[in-house]
Amino acid sequence: MPDERAGRTALVILNTGDGKGKTTAALGTLFRAWGRGWNVIMLQFIKSETANFGEHRAARRTGFPVVPLGAGFTWLSKDLEHDKALARRCWEQCREHLLSGDFDIVALDEITYPLTYGWLPVDEVIETLRQRPAHVHVILTGRAAPEPLVAFADLVTEMRDVKHPFRSRGVKAQAGIEF
Amino acid sequence: MPDERAGRTALVILNTGDGKGKTTAALGTLFRAWGRGWNVIMLQFIKSETANFGEHRAARRTGFPVVPLGAGFTWLSKDLEHDKALARRCWEQCREHLLSGDFDIVALDEITYPLTYGWLPVDEVIETLRQRPAHVHVILTGRAAPEPLVAFADLVTEMRDVKHPFRSRGVKAQAGIEF
Repeated sequence: MPDERAGRTALVILNTGDGKGKTTAALGTLFRAWGRGWNVIMLQFIKSETANFGEHRAARRTGFPVVPLGAGFTWLSKDLEHDKALARRCWEQCREHLLSGDFDIVALDEITYPLTYGWLPVDEVIETLRQRPAHVHVILTGRAAPEPLVAFADLVTEMRDVKHPFRSRGVKAQAGIEF
Repeated sequence: MPDERAGRTALVILNTGDGKGKTTAALGTLFRAWGRGWNVIMLQFIKSETANFGEHRAARRTGFPVVPLGAGFTWLSKDLEHDKALARRCWEQCREHLLSGDFDIVALDEITYPLTYGWLPVDEVIETLRQRPAHVHVILTGRAAPEPLVAFADLVTEMRDVKHPFRSRGVKAQAGIEF
Protein backbone atom coordinates (compact mmCIF):
# COMPACT_ATOMS: atom_id res chain seq x y z
CA MET A 1 0.00 0.00 0.00
CA PRO A 2 1.48 3.37 -0.93
CA ASP A 3 2.16 5.65 2.00
CA GLU A 4 -0.66 8.16 1.76
CA ARG A 5 1.37 10.40 4.02
CA ALA A 6 4.03 11.00 1.39
CA GLY A 7 3.43 14.40 -0.12
CA ARG A 8 0.86 15.27 2.49
CA THR A 9 0.75 18.89 3.60
CA ALA A 10 -0.52 18.68 7.13
CA LEU A 11 -2.83 21.57 7.87
CA VAL A 12 -3.91 23.52 10.92
CA ILE A 13 -7.65 23.98 10.43
CA LEU A 14 -9.56 26.44 12.60
CA ASN A 15 -13.38 26.50 12.88
CA THR A 16 -14.47 29.61 14.72
CA GLY A 17 -17.38 32.08 14.85
CA ASP A 18 -20.62 32.32 16.83
CA GLY A 19 -22.66 29.96 14.62
CA LYS A 20 -23.34 26.23 14.70
CA GLY A 21 -21.14 23.69 13.03
CA LYS A 22 -17.65 24.23 14.46
CA THR A 23 -17.44 20.97 16.41
CA THR A 24 -19.84 19.30 14.00
CA ALA A 25 -17.70 20.02 10.95
CA ALA A 26 -14.65 18.74 12.85
CA LEU A 27 -16.56 15.52 13.54
CA GLY A 28 -17.49 15.33 9.85
CA THR A 29 -13.85 15.68 8.83
CA LEU A 30 -12.82 12.95 11.27
CA PHE A 31 -15.64 10.74 10.00
CA ARG A 32 -14.53 11.17 6.39
CA ALA A 33 -10.86 10.51 7.20
CA TRP A 34 -11.81 7.50 9.31
CA GLY A 35 -13.60 6.26 6.16
CA ARG A 36 -10.20 6.26 4.48
CA GLY A 37 -8.68 4.25 7.31
CA TRP A 38 -6.89 7.15 8.99
CA ASN A 39 -6.26 7.28 12.73
CA VAL A 40 -8.21 10.20 14.13
CA ILE A 41 -9.03 11.53 17.58
CA MET A 42 -11.02 14.39 19.09
CA LEU A 43 -10.10 15.78 22.51
CA GLN A 44 -12.76 18.00 24.02
CA PHE A 45 -11.77 20.80 26.38
CA ILE A 46 -15.14 21.82 27.71
CA LYS A 47 -17.39 18.78 27.61
CA SER A 48 -17.49 17.03 30.95
CA GLU A 49 -15.73 13.70 31.38
CA THR A 50 -19.11 12.10 32.03
CA ALA A 51 -20.64 13.42 28.77
CA ASN A 52 -22.50 10.84 26.69
CA PHE A 53 -23.70 12.89 23.75
CA GLY A 54 -24.39 11.68 20.21
CA GLU A 55 -20.75 12.08 19.22
CA HIS A 56 -19.56 9.91 22.12
CA ARG A 57 -22.06 7.20 21.31
CA ALA A 58 -21.15 7.36 17.63
CA ALA A 59 -17.46 7.27 18.52
CA ARG A 60 -17.96 4.08 20.50
CA ARG A 61 -19.81 2.58 17.55
CA THR A 62 -17.06 3.44 15.08
CA GLY A 63 -14.07 2.95 17.32
CA PHE A 64 -12.45 6.34 16.84
CA PRO A 65 -11.98 8.21 20.09
CA VAL A 66 -13.94 11.34 21.01
CA VAL A 67 -12.62 12.09 24.48
CA PRO A 68 -14.26 14.63 26.79
CA LEU A 69 -11.45 15.95 28.99
CA GLY A 70 -13.16 18.81 30.73
CA ALA A 71 -14.78 18.85 34.07
CA GLY A 72 -17.39 21.27 32.80
CA PHE A 73 -15.35 24.30 33.84
CA THR A 74 -16.79 27.66 32.81
CA TRP A 75 -15.99 31.33 32.89
CA LEU A 76 -18.32 31.60 35.87
CA SER A 77 -16.02 29.60 38.10
CA LYS A 78 -15.17 31.01 41.50
CA ASP A 79 -11.91 29.10 41.74
CA LEU A 80 -9.63 30.43 39.02
CA GLU A 81 -6.54 28.53 40.14
CA HIS A 82 -8.43 25.25 40.08
CA ASP A 83 -9.65 25.91 36.54
CA LYS A 84 -6.23 26.92 35.33
CA ALA A 85 -4.78 23.69 36.69
CA LEU A 86 -7.56 21.73 35.00
CA ALA A 87 -6.96 23.44 31.66
CA ARG A 88 -3.26 22.70 32.04
CA ARG A 89 -3.97 19.03 32.72
CA CYS A 90 -6.22 18.85 29.60
CA TRP A 91 -3.59 20.57 27.50
CA GLU A 92 -0.87 18.13 28.60
CA GLN A 93 -2.98 15.28 27.22
CA CYS A 94 -3.52 17.14 23.95
CA ARG A 95 0.16 17.89 23.69
CA GLU A 96 1.05 14.24 24.11
CA HIS A 97 -1.34 13.20 21.31
CA LEU A 98 -0.14 15.98 19.01
CA LEU A 99 3.52 15.06 19.43
CA SER A 100 3.20 11.28 19.47
CA GLY A 101 2.59 11.05 15.72
CA ASP A 102 0.09 8.24 16.38
CA PHE A 103 -2.77 10.14 14.74
CA ASP A 104 -3.33 11.52 11.25
CA ILE A 105 -5.76 14.11 12.59
CA VAL A 106 -5.96 15.47 16.12
CA ALA A 107 -9.00 17.67 16.80
CA LEU A 108 -8.83 19.96 19.85
CA ASP A 109 -12.45 20.83 20.43
CA GLU A 110 -13.31 24.16 22.11
CA ILE A 111 -9.67 24.95 22.81
CA THR A 112 -10.29 28.65 22.16
CA TYR A 113 -12.05 29.03 25.53
CA PRO A 114 -9.08 28.29 27.82
CA LEU A 115 -6.99 30.48 25.50
CA THR A 116 -9.42 33.36 25.72
CA TYR A 117 -9.76 33.07 29.49
CA GLY A 118 -5.98 33.22 29.80
CA TRP A 119 -5.72 29.75 31.30
CA LEU A 120 -3.39 28.59 28.53
CA PRO A 121 -0.82 30.79 26.78
CA VAL A 122 -1.57 30.89 23.05
CA ASP A 123 2.16 31.08 22.29
CA GLU A 124 2.74 27.76 24.00
CA VAL A 125 -0.03 26.11 21.96
CA ILE A 126 1.36 27.51 18.70
CA GLU A 127 4.86 26.39 19.61
CA THR A 128 3.59 22.82 20.15
CA LEU A 129 1.73 22.93 16.82
CA ARG A 130 5.02 23.89 15.16
CA GLN A 131 6.81 20.99 16.84
CA ARG A 132 4.31 18.30 15.83
CA PRO A 133 5.34 15.56 13.36
CA ALA A 134 4.95 16.67 9.74
CA HIS A 135 2.07 14.30 8.90
CA VAL A 136 -0.30 15.41 11.67
CA HIS A 137 -3.32 17.50 10.62
CA VAL A 138 -4.86 19.52 13.44
CA ILE A 139 -8.39 20.88 13.81
CA LEU A 140 -9.09 23.57 16.40
CA THR A 141 -12.59 24.72 17.28
CA GLY A 142 -14.29 27.37 19.38
CA ARG A 143 -15.67 30.90 19.29
CA ALA A 144 -13.55 34.00 19.22
CA ALA A 145 -10.24 32.43 18.22
CA PRO A 146 -7.32 34.61 19.39
CA GLU A 147 -5.69 36.57 16.60
CA PRO A 148 -2.28 34.77 16.76
CA LEU A 149 -4.08 31.46 16.23
CA VAL A 150 -5.94 32.81 13.18
CA ALA A 151 -2.63 34.09 11.83
CA PHE A 152 -0.96 30.72 12.39
CA ALA A 153 -3.72 28.48 10.97
CA ASP A 154 -3.73 27.39 7.32
CA LEU A 155 -7.50 27.12 6.87
CA VAL A 156 -9.86 29.32 8.83
CA THR A 157 -13.64 29.20 8.55
CA GLU A 158 -16.02 31.42 10.44
CA MET A 159 -19.35 29.78 11.18
CA ARG A 160 -21.69 32.76 11.21
CA ASP A 161 -25.06 32.55 12.96
CA VAL A 162 -27.57 33.82 10.38
CA LYS A 163 -30.71 32.40 11.95
CA HIS A 164 -31.13 30.25 15.04
CA PRO A 165 -34.27 28.25 15.89
CA PHE A 166 -34.22 29.49 19.47
CA ARG A 167 -34.63 33.04 18.24
CA SER A 168 -36.79 32.28 15.20
CA ARG A 169 -39.10 29.73 16.82
CA GLY A 170 -38.22 29.43 20.52
CA VAL A 171 -36.81 25.93 19.95
CA LYS A 172 -34.14 24.79 22.41
CA ALA A 173 -31.16 22.53 21.62
CA GLN A 174 -32.30 18.99 20.90
CA ALA A 175 -30.65 15.61 21.42
CA GLY A 176 -29.69 14.03 18.11
CA ILE A 177 -29.32 17.34 16.35
CA GLU A 178 -27.16 19.55 18.50
CA PHE A 179 -25.44 17.14 20.89
CA MET B 1 -38.12 2.47 24.83
CA PRO B 2 -39.68 5.92 24.93
CA ASP B 3 -40.44 7.41 21.54
CA GLU B 4 -37.69 9.99 21.16
CA ARG B 5 -39.78 11.55 18.41
CA ALA B 6 -42.48 12.71 20.83
CA GLY B 7 -41.97 16.38 21.45
CA ARG B 8 -39.41 16.66 18.71
CA THR B 9 -39.40 19.89 16.72
CA ALA B 10 -38.12 18.85 13.35
CA LEU B 11 -35.90 21.53 11.89
CA VAL B 12 -34.87 22.69 8.47
CA ILE B 13 -31.15 23.39 8.79
CA LEU B 14 -29.30 25.27 6.07
CA ASN B 15 -25.49 25.38 5.77
CA THR B 16 -24.49 27.97 3.19
CA GLY B 17 -21.68 30.42 2.44
CA ASP B 18 -18.44 30.25 0.44
CA GLY B 19 -16.34 28.60 3.17
CA LYS B 20 -15.52 25.01 4.03
CA GLY B 21 -17.66 22.88 6.30
CA LYS B 22 -21.15 22.92 4.79
CA THR B 23 -21.24 19.27 3.72
CA THR B 24 -18.79 18.35 6.46
CA ALA B 25 -20.98 19.75 9.25
CA ALA B 26 -23.97 17.93 7.74
CA LEU B 27 -21.95 14.70 7.88
CA GLY B 28 -21.04 15.48 11.50
CA THR B 29 -24.70 15.96 12.41
CA LEU B 30 -25.63 12.66 10.75
CA PHE B 31 -22.74 10.94 12.52
CA ARG B 32 -23.88 12.23 15.90
CA ALA B 33 -27.52 11.28 15.31
CA TRP B 34 -26.46 7.87 14.02
CA GLY B 35 -24.66 7.52 17.35
CA ARG B 36 -28.07 7.83 19.00
CA GLY B 37 -29.50 5.13 16.77
CA TRP B 38 -31.36 7.45 14.43
CA ASN B 39 -31.99 6.62 10.77
CA VAL B 40 -30.12 9.14 8.69
CA ILE B 41 -29.33 9.59 5.01
CA MET B 42 -27.43 12.03 2.82
CA LEU B 43 -28.39 12.48 -0.83
CA GLN B 44 -25.80 14.34 -2.87
CA PHE B 45 -26.87 16.42 -5.86
CA ILE B 46 -23.55 17.17 -7.43
CA LYS B 47 -21.20 14.34 -6.57
CA SER B 48 -21.06 11.78 -9.36
CA GLU B 49 -22.68 8.39 -8.92
CA THR B 50 -19.26 6.79 -9.15
CA ALA B 51 -17.77 8.96 -6.37
CA ASN B 52 -15.84 7.08 -3.70
CA PHE B 53 -14.72 9.82 -1.37
CA GLY B 54 -14.01 9.57 2.34
CA GLU B 55 -17.65 10.07 3.21
CA HIS B 56 -18.77 7.21 0.97
CA ARG B 57 -16.17 4.87 2.43
CA ALA B 58 -17.10 5.93 5.96
CA ALA B 59 -20.78 5.49 5.14
CA ARG B 60 -20.17 1.94 4.02
CA ARG B 61 -18.28 1.28 7.26
CA THR B 62 -21.08 2.67 9.42
CA GLY B 63 -24.04 1.51 7.39
CA PHE B 64 -25.78 4.87 7.03
CA PRO B 65 -26.27 5.83 3.41
CA VAL B 66 -24.41 8.69 1.72
CA VAL B 67 -25.74 8.49 -1.82
CA PRO B 68 -24.18 10.42 -4.72
CA LEU B 69 -27.03 11.05 -7.15
CA GLY B 70 -25.41 13.43 -9.57
CA ALA B 71 -23.76 12.66 -12.82
CA GLY B 72 -21.25 15.40 -12.22
CA PHE B 73 -23.38 18.02 -13.98
CA THR B 74 -22.07 21.56 -13.85
CA TRP B 75 -22.99 25.07 -14.86
CA LEU B 76 -20.61 24.64 -17.79
CA SER B 77 -22.86 22.09 -19.46
CA LYS B 78 -23.73 22.57 -23.10
CA ASP B 79 -26.95 20.58 -22.82
CA LEU B 80 -29.29 22.46 -20.51
CA GLU B 81 -32.31 20.25 -21.10
CA HIS B 82 -30.32 17.15 -20.23
CA ASP B 83 -29.13 18.73 -16.97
CA LYS B 84 -32.59 19.90 -16.03
CA ALA B 85 -33.93 16.37 -16.54
CA LEU B 86 -31.08 15.01 -14.42
CA ALA B 87 -31.76 17.48 -11.61
CA ARG B 88 -35.44 16.56 -11.77
CA ARG B 89 -34.58 12.84 -11.49
CA CYS B 90 -32.35 13.53 -8.46
CA TRP B 91 -35.03 15.64 -6.83
CA GLU B 92 -37.67 12.92 -7.27
CA GLN B 93 -35.48 10.57 -5.24
CA CYS B 94 -35.00 13.21 -2.54
CA ARG B 95 -38.72 13.89 -2.45
CA GLU B 96 -39.48 10.23 -1.93
CA HIS B 97 -37.07 9.99 1.01
CA LEU B 98 -38.36 13.24 2.55
CA LEU B 99 -41.98 12.13 2.38
CA SER B 100 -41.54 8.46 3.30
CA GLY B 101 -40.94 9.21 6.98
CA ASP B 102 -38.35 6.41 7.04
CA PHE B 103 -35.56 8.75 8.12
CA ASP B 104 -35.06 11.00 11.16
CA ILE B 105 -32.70 13.23 9.20
CA VAL B 106 -32.54 13.66 5.44
CA ALA B 107 -29.57 15.71 4.22
CA LEU B 108 -29.79 17.15 0.70
CA ASP B 109 -26.20 17.98 -0.10
CA GLU B 110 -25.45 20.79 -2.57
CA ILE B 111 -29.11 21.26 -3.43
CA THR B 112 -28.62 25.03 -3.75
CA TYR B 113 -26.86 24.61 -7.11
CA PRO B 114 -29.80 23.20 -9.14
CA LEU B 115 -31.97 25.84 -7.42
CA THR B 116 -29.62 28.66 -8.37
CA TYR B 117 -29.27 27.43 -11.95
CA GLY B 118 -33.05 27.38 -12.28
CA TRP B 119 -33.19 23.62 -12.86
CA LEU B 120 -35.49 23.12 -9.87
CA PRO B 121 -38.13 25.62 -8.71
CA VAL B 122 -37.40 26.69 -5.12
CA ASP B 123 -41.16 26.93 -4.42
CA GLU B 124 -41.61 23.28 -5.22
CA VAL B 125 -38.80 22.28 -2.86
CA ILE B 126 -40.22 24.42 -0.05
CA GLU B 127 -43.70 22.99 -0.61
CA THR B 128 -42.32 19.45 -0.26
CA LEU B 129 -40.47 20.44 2.92
CA ARG B 130 -43.79 21.69 4.31
CA GLN B 131 -45.48 18.40 3.42
CA ARG B 132 -42.89 16.14 5.05
CA PRO B 133 -43.85 14.09 8.13
CA ALA B 134 -43.51 16.07 11.37
CA HIS B 135 -40.56 14.09 12.77
CA VAL B 136 -38.22 14.54 9.79
CA HIS B 137 -35.27 16.92 10.27
CA VAL B 138 -33.77 18.22 7.03
CA ILE B 139 -30.30 19.55 6.30
CA LEU B 140 -29.68 21.52 3.11
CA THR B 141 -26.20 22.53 1.96
CA GLY B 142 -24.59 24.61 -0.77
CA ARG B 143 -23.31 28.09 -1.57
CA ALA B 144 -25.55 31.04 -2.27
CA ALA B 145 -28.82 29.67 -0.90
CA PRO B 146 -31.79 31.39 -2.56
CA GLU B 147 -33.50 33.94 -0.33
CA PRO B 148 -36.85 32.05 -0.03
CA LEU B 149 -34.94 29.04 1.32
CA VAL B 150 -33.14 31.18 3.91
CA ALA B 151 -36.49 32.64 4.91
CA PHE B 152 -38.05 29.19 5.25
CA ALA B 153 -35.21 27.47 7.16
CA ASP B 154 -35.19 27.33 10.97
CA LEU B 155 -31.42 27.31 11.45
CA VAL B 156 -29.12 29.01 8.99
CA THR B 157 -25.34 29.10 9.27
CA GLU B 158 -23.03 30.85 6.87
CA MET B 159 -19.65 29.19 6.55
CA ARG B 160 -17.40 32.14 5.77
CA ASP B 161 -14.02 31.59 4.11
CA VAL B 162 -11.57 33.55 6.28
CA LYS B 163 -8.38 31.89 5.10
CA HIS B 164 -7.86 29.04 2.65
CA PRO B 165 -4.66 27.02 2.31
CA PHE B 166 -4.75 27.30 -1.48
CA ARG B 167 -4.49 31.06 -1.20
CA SER B 168 -2.31 31.17 1.92
CA ARG B 169 0.10 28.36 0.99
CA GLY B 170 -0.77 27.10 -2.50
CA VAL B 171 -2.05 23.81 -1.06
CA LYS B 172 -4.69 22.01 -3.13
CA ALA B 173 -7.58 19.94 -1.77
CA GLN B 174 -6.32 16.72 -0.18
CA ALA B 175 -7.87 13.26 0.15
CA GLY B 176 -8.77 12.54 3.74
CA ILE B 177 -9.25 16.18 4.64
CA GLU B 178 -11.50 17.70 2.02
CA PHE B 179 -13.12 14.70 0.32
